[in-house]
Amino acid sequence: MNIQVIPSANVCRKSDVKGKVVVVIDVLRATTVVTLALQNGARSVIPMQTPEEVMERRSQMNSSSVLTGGERNAVKIEGFDLGNSPEEYTPSVVNGKDILFTTSNGTAALLATEGAQDVMLGCFLNVSSLVEKVLNANTDVAIICAGTNSDFSLDDGICAGMLIYQISRRVPVDTNDLGALLSKYYENGSTGILSKIVECNHVKTLFALGYYNDVMYCLRTDRSQIVPHYRNGAITVK
Amino acid sequence: MNIQVIPSANVCRKSDVKGKVVVVIDVLRATTVVTLALQNGARSVIPMQTPEEVMERRSQMNSSSVLTGGERNAVKIEGFDLGNSPEEYTPSVVNGKDILFTTSNGTAALLATEGAQDVMLGCFLNVSSLVEKVLNANTDVAIICAGTNSDFSLDDGICAGMLIYQISRRVPVDTNDLGALLSKYYENGSTGILSKIVECNHVKTLFALGYYNDVMYCLRTDRSQIVPHYRNGAITVK
Repeated sequence: MNIQVIPSANVCRKSDVKGKVVVVIDVLRATTVVTLALQNGARSVIPMQTPEEVMERRSQMNSSSVLTGGERNAVKIEGFDLGNSPEEYTPSVVNGKDILFTTSNGTAALLATEGAQDVMLGCFLNVSSLVEKVLNANTDVAIICAGTNSDFSLDDGICAGMLIYQISRRVPVDTNDLGALLSKYYENGSTGILSKIVECNHVKTLFALGYYNDVMYCLRTDRSQIVPHYRNGAITVK
Repeated sequence: MNIQVIPSANVCRKSDVKGKVVVVIDVLRATTVVTLALQNGARSVIPMQTPEEVMERRSQMNSSSVLTGGERNAVKIEGFDLGNSPEEYTPSVVNGKDILFTTSNGTAALLATEGAQDVMLGCFLNVSSLVEKVLNANTDVAIICAGTNSDFSLDDGICAGMLIYQISRRVPVDTNDLGALLSKYYENGSTGILSKIVECNHVKTLFALGYYNDVMYCLRTDRSQIVPHYRNGAITVK
């Protein structure tokens, strides 16, 4: 199985994803929050580029079944129902709702997948279920690490490494150098992975803003069997 | 000291290099070959984008002091004096010469440095001398890993990791996640670094083409005190 890792969404080219199964990873926090929202009963999550688009779309929809969520500079957007913290997306809040969602990096990563055969969202929460989906697809794969501020982010990278490492234990994997590096890094440090991630620049930012619980939540592994799929502008469970 | 690592030349933005000291690394083989050529007495190496530009420029110069060198698809270009193998750039061949030089990835990396304060070329051959130069500069640093076919290449990455690791033992270093990953990867595997590099995709390509000696040469550490500088279109010893 051929697996190419893209270091950040802004450097993803059309040829990197065309016709492939694409996995978008934004561990802190977008893909984790989306996975959790769908697990807790949300009907769909609709990624949008700007807060303004979200507000305009909301005004056109039946407000009783719609929520707005997301962040800018890691903080909840003024006038939105929800921020980007997992703990906000409880069953009582999100069940049956469509969530209009915009984040700094995750949305750009999803928009970069145009031309892909299939797009899935990955995070530590659903990594083992994702492994099964990718193995079933049995085709060329691109993993887009969403990144932070247009730069590679190690939290996404270690999740990508975990995914490749687990797949490579089941089938032969041919990967690019970044994929090989991340898989090896995960393998060598798998028992102390948390200590590696807390050194990420993005984690330092989130800690400084008081999002300690969010980070700890996002680093939980295999708590969900939900693999969100993005198609026709919406993220749902397949 | 702030050190940002760029995964491949094609994703380098103007803002990544503006006003900084930039280190360009293309271990296999461009920056190694240039370092060696200057050590062996070449007057300058002039990087050019295309073989056609090289041939046109050569026709305008005094041919007795000019050589043409470089590769496409890793192989010597038809009509050129030299390919991209270190063993070709001996003192008897290059002493006193200006070398018009074009390679697939290294040239693009040098052209991406526009706006930098200073541009140096790095490789395993000169890594300790490079550490001293960077420490003396004492300003923000960008390391451009040239990459292979517009993708991150682990040979460049491990050299970047070695550079950051050695600098971080002398002064406090603030780096991006890719820089931290590579530094840690180098630190954890420094005694077996060769075995990691021979797993690179680019190394596999070079081995398949019979360039075993080239790869082994390029992995030698600290065999040169030459730090090539690129300015005004030419690479020389400062």
